[in-house]
Amino acid sequence: MKDPVYKLIELTGTSAVSIEDAVEKAIERAQQTLKNLCWFQVVETRGSIAEGKIRHWQVTIKVGFMIDEGAAH
Amino acid sequence: MKDPVYKLIELTGTSAVSIEDAVEKAIERAQQTLKNLCWFQVVETRGSIAEGKIRHWQVTIKVGFMIDEGAAH
Amino acid sequence: MKDPVYKLIELTGTSAVSIEDAVEKAIERAQQTLKNLCWFQVVETRGSIAEGKIRHWQVTIKVGFMIDEGAAH
Amino acid sequence: MKDPVYKLIELTGTSAVSIEDAVEKAIERAQQTLKNLCWFQVVETRGSIAEGKIRHWQVTIKVGFMIDEGAAH
Amino acid sequence: MKDPVYKLIELTGTSAVSIEDAVEKAIERAQQTLKNLCWFQVVETRGSIAEGKIRHWQVTIKVGFMIDEGAAH
Amino acid sequence: MKDPVYKLIELTGTSAVSIEDAVEKAIERAQQTLKNLCWFQVVETRGSIAEGKIRHWQVTIKVGFMIDEGAAH
Amino acid sequence: MKDPVYKLIELTGTSAVSIEDAVEKAIERAQQTLKNLCWFQVVETRGSIAEGKIRHWQVTIKVGFMIDEGAAH
Amino acid sequence: MKDPVYKLIELTGTSAVSIEDAVEKAIERAQQTLKNLCWFQVVETRGSIAEGKIRHWQVTIKVGFMIDEGAAH
Amino acid sequence: MKDPVYKLIELTGTSAVSIEDAVEKAIERAQQTLKNLCWFQVVETRGSIAEGKIRHWQVTIKVGFMIDEGAAH
Amino acid sequence: MKDPVYKLIELTGTSAVSIEDAVEKAIERAQQTLKNLCWFQVVETRGSIAEGKIRHWQVTIKVGFMIDEGAAH
Amino acid sequence: MKDPVYKLIELTGTSAVSIEDAVEKAIERAQQTLKNLCWFQVVETRGSIAEGKIRHWQVTIKVGFMIDEGAAH
Amino acid sequence: MKDPVYKLIELTGTSAVSIEDAVEKAIERAQQTLKNLCWFQVVETRGSIAEGKIRHWQVTIKVGFMIDEGAAH
Repeated sequence: MKDPVYKLIELTGTSAVSIEDAVEKAIERAQQTLKNLCWFQVVETRGSIAEGKIRHWQVTIKVGFMIDEGAAH
Repeated sequence: MKDPVYKLIELTGTSAVSIEDAVEKAIERAQQTLKNLCWFQVVETRGSIAEGKIRHWQVTIKVGFMIDEGAAH
Repeated sequence: MKDPVYKLIELTGTSAVSIEDAVEKAIERAQQTLKNLCWFQVVETRGSIAEGKIRHWQVTIKVGFMIDEGAAH
Repeated sequence: MKDPVYKLIELTGTSAVSIEDAVEKAIERAQQTLKNLCWFQVVETRGSIAEGKIRHWQVTIKVGFMIDEGAAH
Repeated sequence: MKDPVYKLIELTGTSAVSIEDAVEKAIERAQQTLKNLCWFQVVETRGSIAEGKIRHWQVTIKVGFMIDEGAAH
Repeated sequence: MKDPVYKLIELTGTSAVSIEDAVEKAIERAQQTLKNLCWFQVVETRGSIAEGKIRHWQVTIKVGFMIDEGAAH
Repeated sequence: MKDPVYKLIELTGTSAVSIEDAVEKAIERAQQTLKNLCWFQVVETRGSIAEGKIRHWQVTIKVGFMIDEGAAH
Repeated sequence: MKDPVYKLIELTGTSAVSIEDAVEKAIERAQQTLKNLCWFQVVETRGSIAEGKIRHWQVTIKVGFMIDEGAAH
Repeated sequence: MKDPVYKLIELTGTSAVSIEDAVEKAIERAQQTLKNLCWFQVVETRGSIAEGKIRHWQVTIKVGFMIDEGAAH
Repeated sequence: MKDPVYKLIELTGTSAVSIEDAVEKAIERAQQTLKNLCWFQVVETRGSIAEGKIRHWQVTIKVGFMIDEGAAH
Repeated sequence: MKDPVYKLIELTGTSAVSIEDAVEKAIERAQQTLKNLCWFQVVETRGSIAEGKIRHWQVTIKVGFMIDEGAAH
Repeated sequence: MKDPVYKLIELTGTSAVSIEDAVEKAIERAQQTLKNLCWFQVVETRGSIAEGKIRHWQVTIKVGFMIDEGAAH
């Protein structure tokens, strides 16, 4: 078997609920168009505030997935 | 309308419950004396341990808010 | 409405004129194929020198845009 | 004369024009309420995009100023 | 009393549930063999993905504990 | 001629042999679907261990390539 | 008792004598207007030179203090 | 099965031959006293020079290994 | 002679006197249980404040020491 | 042809006008005594303030140039 | 008057006594061959250990000095 | 004997062969004009690509050497 090559993309998931939920949202969306998701790394945790309360957690992650032949774009 | 200017302050919220709760505590307190809170960024996540258990999550954030004329101190 | 998910891509714009022009060039090009561009962050500012003068500013930015269902590739 | 002590505050200036203009806007506003501004350092350069064009440069700076007795708050 | 000296060790806790749970798992395990755990700092937050869902949160922390005489190994 | 714009993608190449081989594997794969590869930067060097020996070098790189009109996706 | 919230401010102390003296100068000044100072972290150590000798150590620190209700400005 | 906990230790391997050889030397030594080595990350690459030639590559890595109950010291 | 392998451990020394004294305290303690200490690097300089004065300098260092066969735990 | 070797030097250019002008000033000065300047990277952007206005932009860059045989000092 | 240009060089001073003394040693040496030394920044603080005691503090600094026409080498 | 002072210079070595070879090329060149080279640290690893293959490894290092009296320029 050939040595695998992975691609990393960077996504920002958002959620009114929690950091974990924002990450899950981003991974769910990635899963709709990408195969072979393998791992993620949290890059930054931010959020927006409205009327003195957290409106959205905004968590930026890198997601790594194995790429097939001819899929590096 | 004039181009807005924002100020960032750095706060450490604490909570026995969760990272999210520590951040909310810090924002609630900021909201008591500041208007126009807009966003936050998590800077550092630490905690204290007592008897082998997490006693307090200590989450340091920067909070950005729009400043009015004459309020940059 | 669903919680939005954003993707960040990294581009290097170049310009003989200024840093701002290099960033604008990168965003213009991104705009040709991507919808819903929202924000950018400057990652690195470099340049090439020819005959003792700046030939090109090379400014690397991350551009964030909201992704639709089925568009995370 | 006593050894001076300085305080640093963090501001985000915004401008539709340029990075320099965003920094100047932030310093002008600081100048309205603070005396003895001495230096600044650029911390981050970002911006918002609307309809494929840069709407605002958002430049975060630290501004250092000498503090008098009884002014460290 | 002598000035205390602390040692920091680096652990990665894992959990299918949350970031907080992964940190608690790491601290529980440290507690089995170490006395005087005092604080922790989150160093990195990653995770593994299986079938498009988060399988494990992997949170790396540093844990600081006071060392007795003759226990620095 | 117009000022060129470049895109950077992030890839992790793997190899049982060496760091250089892992980078070459990643670039070969990128070359299958992308034109005009120009440069790379090593971002991180890691590896997996099996039975006390290095099984795979895992080297993450950014690869920069010139983008044509209408190719920034 | 409520979970405490802390604020961090950034100060640069100066001294012709030593790094420690510069930090102490900054904390003394903070103490004139702030209650409940708890900890500090050294952020940067610089200095000015005059006639080939160190004129001033310039040490930038963050100082954390517990904030009371209504004091986050 | 319980969620695994990993410990990371930091080692500097040395070699007159190559970066890869220095890393292998460090892992071999770790393997003599530790079970379940899983992964490594290169932290720093340095070296000593003697008579204008590289005498030793000095590569600092973190090595992660799964810890059993009662083995976190 | 074989190529040496070093281990790095992280310690926080404390002192009411100075940064140097805090580092020395940490090294003295390490010396009680470890042979062949070779070098240290200062990682972080912090401190605690009591009644407006520095109570303890807290200096975190990495200490490197040569490991013998069978001593990597 | 031999593989080229480059040297990087660090310069701070200053200008009352703009970031770009400060960089150009630094490169112009380097060009007076160095041949074969190839590229630069912006390392830090700071400035001095006088009477509430920016007096000087101070932009620190690294400049890379190809070195001839016998010119590495 | 022309806008000044500064050059930064990196030096490691050593001392058996203190961090401050190591920095002073480095500046004294720089002063022997360079005019117009203006400022320094501490980049790294390390040291060597012999027989369980600190033998040398090794403090790396950048030193900035104003350069005259034709002196950028 | 006096406490030694070291100078660090930054070089980029290039090689079509390997990272190690690029570093050796840079050190060889430094050796032509500098005495007492002591150590190096790898700062950045990049490379250029031509026709989908690595053309040059470009490895930037800092090289430290002991300076004699009157040689700090």
